[in-house]
Amino acid sequence: MSFTRISEIGEFALIDRLATLIAPTESQLSTLKKGIGDDCAVIELPNGKLQVVSTDLLIEQIHFDLLTTPLEHLGAKAISVNVSDICAMNAKPLYATVSIGLSNNISVEMIEQIYEGAARVAKQYGIAIVGGDTSASITGLVISVTIVGEVDASKITYRSGAKAGDLICVTGDVGRSFAGLKVLMRERQTMLDTFAENPDMDKSTYTADLSEYQKAIEKHLLPKARIDAVKFFHEVGLVPTSMIDVSDGVGSELKHLCRNSQVGALIEESKLPILSETREISDEFEDDGTTYALFGGEDYELLFTISPNDFDKLSSFKDVHIIGKVLDASSGVKMRDLFGTDIDLQSASGFQHFTEEEDLFEDDDDAHDHDGHDHSAHNHSAHNHNEHNHNGHDDEDEDIWGERKN
Amino acid sequence: MSFTRISEIGEFALIDRLATLIAPTESQLSTLKKGIGDDCAVIELPNGKLQVVSTDLLIEQIHFDLLTTPLEHLGAKAISVNVSDICAMNAKPLYATVSIGLSNNISVEMIEQIYEGAARVAKQYGIAIVGGDTSASITGLVISVTIVGEVDASKITYRSGAKAGDLICVTGDVGRSFAGLKVLMRERQTMLDTFAENPDMDKSTYTADLSEYQKAIEKHLLPKARIDAVKFFHEVGLVPTSMIDVSDGVGSELKHLCRNSQVGALIEESKLPILSETREISDEFEDDGTTYALFGGEDYELLFTISPNDFDKLSSFKDVHIIGKVLDASSGVKMRDLFGTDIDLQSASGFQHFTEEEDLFEDDDDAHDHDGHDHSAHNHSAHNHNEHNHNGHDDEDEDIWGERKN
Repeated sequence: MSFTRISEIGEFALIDRLATLIAPTESQLSTLKKGIGDDCAVIELPNGKLQVVSTDLLIEQIHFDLLTTPLEHLGAKAISVNVSDICAMNAKPLYATVSIGLSNNISVEMIEQIYEGAARVAKQYGIAIVGGDTSASITGLVISVTIVGEVDASKITYRSGAKAGDLICVTGDVGRSFAGLKVLMRERQTMLDTFAENPDMDKSTYTADLSEYQKAIEKHLLPKARIDAVKFFHEVGLVPTSMIDVSDGVGSELKHLCRNSQVGALIEESKLPILSETREISDEFEDDGTTYALFGGEDYELLFTISPNDFDKLSSFKDVHIIGKVLDASSGVKMRDLFGTDIDLQSASGFQHFTEEEDLFEDDDDAHDHDGHDHSAHNHSAHNHNEHNHNGHDDEDEDIWGERKN
Repeated sequence: MSFTRISEIGEFALIDRLATLIAPTESQLSTLKKGIGDDCAVIELPNGKLQVVSTDLLIEQIHFDLLTTPLEHLGAKAISVNVSDICAMNAKPLYATVSIGLSNNISVEMIEQIYEGAARVAKQYGIAIVGGDTSASITGLVISVTIVGEVDASKITYRSGAKAGDLICVTGDVGRSFAGLKVLMRERQTMLDTFAENPDMDKSTYTADLSEYQKAIEKHLLPKARIDAVKFFHEVGLVPTSMIDVSDGVGSELKHLCRNSQVGALIEESKLPILSETREISDEFEDDGTTYALFGGEDYELLFTISPNDFDKLSSFKDVHIIGKVLDASSGVKMRDLFGTDIDLQSASGFQHFTEEEDLFEDDDDAHDHDGHDHSAHNHSAHNHNEHNHNGHDDEDEDIWGERKN
């Protein structure tokens, strides 16, 4: 048998190969509307509703570090990132299963903390945790969550419905989670250095004042799925033409929406909702905050497109920003930067990890859904902004997103 | 925070504590009929049908060893053990998600083999694989499968419906999977010893003739979920009064059924369907084949109870054995051995791993569902048969299972 490294063929090719293998099984479920390739699989229910299903695997040292992640937060985040996938279909989450692989340095109290976090946010989202599996693990902690939701067939939102002329919107703010991760990773190193220098130190006495970074750290450790936005859409009868949750960064997700919808897009850097807290951290790390927003990931905001006719319906939802416009596929996927230069986002990396020179499999840094959707977003692409193709000299530099200003 | 080892409180107490934590979330799903505590969670669908959901986490070195497990078999088994949980509810499996955590020594071809196995048996079971998550893992291979099925409300079968007087039945044969595991574990050691003695050996040239053990090895590596039995039940209109799949061994599963149904049971050792192949292997290891059947596990047969009135309906299903009778709770859970002695199965270990003296968390050997259901069954209890309470001197030694002979 030949031995092909995943990095040799790339993430999308791997997913395509796996999808080919399981395609013959998909045809056995006549009610299956969508298998691999979106935030959720979609199955018809008898009453005209659709069931949506998503699953995420969180693995220690790949998706989280126990030195910097309180267990209660970890349990909460495991639920939230799954609820976020349900939200991305414009659906209502109903129930989840939570499986845990436990390494032998985990106590009963620690397991309880994970479940307390999961149960706390499950209550907030109105979902039930209905079961799971608990197993030993010889290595690290593993959490696997599967979530099931429901939506009227008339309201389901795929990645594939965006049309030229649609407005591109994003909830909340972006890039902040990655800024928080940067701070946590630095703190982790400081902690390890301190312990190494003081081998006799009582580790429980270690303290650090991270209060100035609190907003960013909180966003990273305790992201909230935007179920409020989905509720709003349902209340005002707004069905986005396409939607995806921001687990990889706005730039990466925009490319997914465009590829799935066979359209192009132009977003404007100045419209990206990036908080000053995020900019301050990126400045501190001598990074570009825009890159955190585009490719940092784990914000779990919703990136979606709406018909311009629905613009008024959106106006009473305050926590949303229109950042650009859908264009024909021939226009490519671009961002107009602060200098009026159109940057080709498709030539920038940030999502197709396995094809990058650096082997991210050895870099604590690569998790990818079957849908080509990364949930790890650790450090992997914030340094790639320099590779962007500043192709410049575009002559259109008028405001492209209609009248609404953020 | 105090640090309580799982072994200090035991598996059931841990599950109870986790169940208490998530109970407040369960009440949020008004359609939830059953959360933690059976082979599947059960949710009402709009058309009067019930949805059943189960999930299993398979972790390298806990549930499988890549030295002795072909990847194609591993993918197949991951699906089969989940389908088996759906069968245990008397339900029809519909679709599954398959998530994989990949260590960096795994090639594209190896991942494809896992999926080929999963897809192959998914086709046999008539289910669709609708999605999943693929992630890096810094240590070992992790497979998480969640499966969804459906059943008419009138046909759902829980662990809790057995009544005194019911007949206790098991499909196929039992103990064989554990016999296969014993052979594989011995072979694994031989292999490791050979490699250690011949460090320059080309490992791919290693061969072993295990053909005489083929039936047992096949049962262990490629168990088949008994979807045929469920189809038969539906065809003849037979609804078992209780059912569970044999992942832990007939003795352990019988105790689950009795605890959940609040009944007692008496099974007869001579009626246990144990093949000569299984006995030959247990003899070779100087073990007792009956113990393999009672506590070895991973047979993935169905253990169920039926009303004596349904006896005739069962008669045209050939691959089933009546092994005993349900009694009042006060009678305990016992097996009448070949000498006519009633052995108390409840005092034997084999399922409550964490309370055993030996810390199985350090023994490659403990995986347990929220439902108190073990899926690892590696070596853990086959040596415990001697602890059985041979309380002897029972005066009832007539045939307890009615007229049908196996």
